[in-house]
Amino acid sequence: MREPTVREIFKQELEQVGDGLREMSTLVVDAIESASTALRTADLQLAERVIEADEAIDEIERRLDEQCVSLLARQQPVATDLRVVVTALRLSATLERMGDLARHIAYVARGRYPELAPSVPMRDIFDQMGVAAVKVARQVTELLESRDLAQAAGVERDDDTLDDLHRETFRIMLDADVEMTKQELIDGVLLGRYFERFGDHGVSVARRISFLVTGDLSNSVAFDA
Amino acid sequence: MREPTVREIFKQELEQVGDGLREMSTLVVDAIESASTALRTADLQLAERVIEADEAIDEIERRLDEQCVSLLARQQPVATDLRVVVTALRLSATLERMGDLARHIAYVARGRYPELAPSVPMRDIFDQMGVAAVKVARQVTELLESRDLAQAAGVERDDDTLDDLHRETFRIMLDADVEMTKQELIDGVLLGRYFERFGDHGVSVARRISFLVTGDLSNSVAFDA
Repeated sequence: MREPTVREIFKQELEQVGDGLREMSTLVVDAIESASTALRTADLQLAERVIEADEAIDEIERRLDEQCVSLLARQQPVATDLRVVVTALRLSATLERMGDLARHIAYVARGRYPELAPSVPMRDIFDQMGVAAVKVARQVTELLESRDLAQAAGVERDDDTLDDLHRETFRIMLDADVEMTKQELIDGVLLGRYFERFGDHGVSVARRISFLVTGDLSNSVAFDA
Repeated sequence: MREPTVREIFKQELEQVGDGLREMSTLVVDAIESASTALRTADLQLAERVIEADEAIDEIERRLDEQCVSLLARQQPVATDLRVVVTALRLSATLERMGDLARHIAYVARGRYPELAPSVPMRDIFDQMGVAAVKVARQVTELLESRDLAQAAGVERDDDTLDDLHRETFRIMLDADVEMTKQELIDGVLLGRYFERFGDHGVSVARRISFLVTGDLSNSVAFDA
């Protein structure tokens, strides 16, 4: 049996980085799904599981960072290979942040237990935001596998949905006929922001992958404005 | 005159990247200073200047990204040099985000004009958050120049101040004796969150620079949790 070439080793290591990103992304799907369910059902144990599980996502980020820097040092990639490694560094940071946001949603669910955190007028809208956020995370995971640009467009659409729903949260909260306590308003603002940012980060991942596929930078700039 | 060596060119290009980071950081100081003033004085023109000026910060981030990737491709740095370039990529992303947060604060100031955005019970606390956030940004700028770890510790302290003040915003908002409209509560939650995140990002910059100086990773992990 012949020794693997430098190129083959590079490809293999890059594949491991890709596996790590998909692993993170799968954990982010679990996190946002569980956080949304914990929020909808006041499930304390589920909220706590999301909070604890975030450490595993952070751990993969640290491992991927080390792998990418080590790859750059040993393999000295150029051109597309270099862009792939630099993009992987950024994707892991973004996925880590999506995990944080799911954890923040779980904190709100835990903080109001045994009550439901969303007030009655906000329940339907946060259910919808949860559904859209889970769709974002699932499509991001599929996109990491397929690099299919149709999925990137799907992430953008679901993020638009999250943005629309976010605007709607303010309309409901500011409606003079809607009565909410101060705590309910505070939770409403925070939850809306967490879901909205989760969508923004999903779009950031989608655009970076699209850029790798198409080489078109115009899509990838200022995405998290 | 002799040609510069590869090493000299690398040092020179790295110096340019450092200049770019300091340039960004100086613009971030301006942005958070002006945003805080616009918030305190209901200064519409100043708020609009912050919003417009954010484009310049984004532009430097794009330029630095290109420079760093080009540096990696042409110079193929290893060891500390490689870590410096990878860190620069991350610092520019973090500084860009600090600029965004200043812009978000400016949006709130603009949105309430000609009124003052912070409600009467919240004015003092947001003044204090503004002062602490400006200190964070100034120290980050100095730290980029000096790499003096005492300044990194200063950033951590001012971020602690921001966290304390952030907790205090909730105490005030939830005080049954404090009357606030829904819009005032919403603005209070958003502003508190923007300032608090601004501090978190400042700490992220400080820890990454400390890591470069000391090589100690234990300080640099999970900083934006």
